Amino acid sequence: MNTPDVAENSADLTKSLANVRVVLSHTSHPGNIGAAARAMKTMGLEKLYLINPRHFPDAQADAMAAGADDVLKNAVVCSTLDEALHGVVLVAGMSARVRDISQEVLTPRVAMPLLAEQAVQHPVALLFGTEMSGLSNDELARCQIMVRIPVSPAYTSLNLAAAVQLVSYELRLAVGLGEYAVPELVPAPAEQIEGLFQHMEEALNEIEFLHSKQPTKLMHKLRRLYSRARLEQEEVNILRGILTLSTQYHGKLKKEANE
Amino acid sequence: MNTPDVAENSADLTKSLANVRVVLSHTSHPGNIGAAARAMKTMGLEKLYLINPRHFPDAQADAMAAGADDVLKNAVVCSTLDEALHGVVLVAGMSARVRDISQEVLTPRVAMPLLAEQAVQHPVALLFGTEMSGLSNDELARCQIMVRIPVSPAYTSLNLAAAVQLVSYELRLAVGLGEYAVPELVPAPAEQIEGLFQHMEEALNEIEFLHSKQPTKLMHKLRRLYSRARLEQEEVNILRGILTLSTQYHGKLKKEANE
Repeated sequence: MNTPDVAENSADLTKSLANVRVVLSHTSHPGNIGAAARAMKTMGLEKLYLINPRHFPDAQADAMAAGADDVLKNAVVCSTLDEALHGVVLVAGMSARVRDISQEVLTPRVAMPLLAEQAVQHPVALLFGTEMSGLSNDELARCQIMVRIPVSPAYTSLNLAAAVQLVSYELRLAVGLGEYAVPELVPAPAEQIEGLFQHMEEALNEIEFLHSKQPTKLMHKLRRLYSRARLEQEEVNILRGILTLSTQYHGKLKKEANE
Repeated sequence: MNTPDVAENSADLTKSLANVRVVLSHTSHPGNIGAAARAMKTMGLEKLYLINPRHFPDAQADAMAAGADDVLKNAVVCSTLDEALHGVVLVAGMSARVRDISQEVLTPRVAMPLLAEQAVQHPVALLFGTEMSGLSNDELARCQIMVRIPVSPAYTSLNLAAAVQLVSYELRLAVGLGEYAVPELVPAPAEQIEGLFQHMEEALNEIEFLHSKQPTKLMHKLRRLYSRARLEQEEVNILRGILTLSTQYHGKLKKEANE
């Protein structure tokens, strides 16, 4: 695949994220709204909907948003769930608790690909309830998918913005933006690795390290170690440089001893 | 598998998490230490190591820890990296940036299973640098694995505690604790579904809904809809109850009309 294709594809994936609304219902603490905005933006989500937030706009929200103040500035404040969900084709509700209402509950890893699939073309929503009591029964009834983040049964107190962070992360991965450019490593091909081991064996023979009862076994152990490290070309060169200089140094010492 | 086995297995997995140290180096904001403790505990991690924190203990750390104050209370404050890593067999460093030093960088999803594998028997560490500049070069040199959380290139400002949250979550999933007990649903078997469709067809015939040109096509569409919903037994009963009462009501109206 050539670079323009990759770039176009990445733009399409980003477009999917633009179809995702994060809807926070009746949030009590404005700091959580700001931290949620920051969490969203790190994962490429920008559309924040707030249903009757207790305090908004608010200085604490701004402070916690760090550089994500544009997400707050563009946040849509609604007075009803209908408003926040207008046009949305799939609603995933975040639930912290097992309820009486029996409903299938999915992990974020299973649920986010379902949202990502729709988000290619249509608006979708992640619906978060209040800090204290989560989603109301009326809100639950509007969710086509219920999602629960796996937490330790011993301590389930996941912060609202932390939940937004985790689900946004899973969604970023689900749309296919979980990879990134990494420093290019140049792995050494087999013949270079083999050249190193030949060189190593000669050098170790010279210092009589391999004059033991089991020279083959020792070389096998060294092979195992360096194979596990999956050597890069540059590293092979460094190791061979050490071997070369070590042999030269021995040669020099021998010459001096003979003079 | 019977219940005691599951319980034992879950205890073993929790033991793996007990082998994981979260090491925060030179953290500036005590609030981040508290929020990190909370994030850890939601995912079942408890061992916090702090290398020269700027302020600790601190009231802001306590406030942000919410119920995770035991993690803070048991935190080990160290003056050197050596101290924090004593006994650790695998160190994963969290890196936010691509550096000059070429080193393989893994996503949390790829890296955490490597840590989980070691954590079954040995102490392992997740090493986080400062809020502003991440890990120092000396710290980087101590990491056997480098991990980078995929973030939006447009906004990479992931909060320290949010990073701890995401990696702890991936680690919880990697040790096998990403599932939870869900309300038991009783899916309807094929014969019950078929009974519903028979019943539905009769009832729709009666009201002459299916007296169109394409009755078969219409029934296929209804089948498609209800198949997609993967009906539960209780739902089949509710729908058949509606059909039965509707037919009875028609019967009553007809009887009255005839009288």
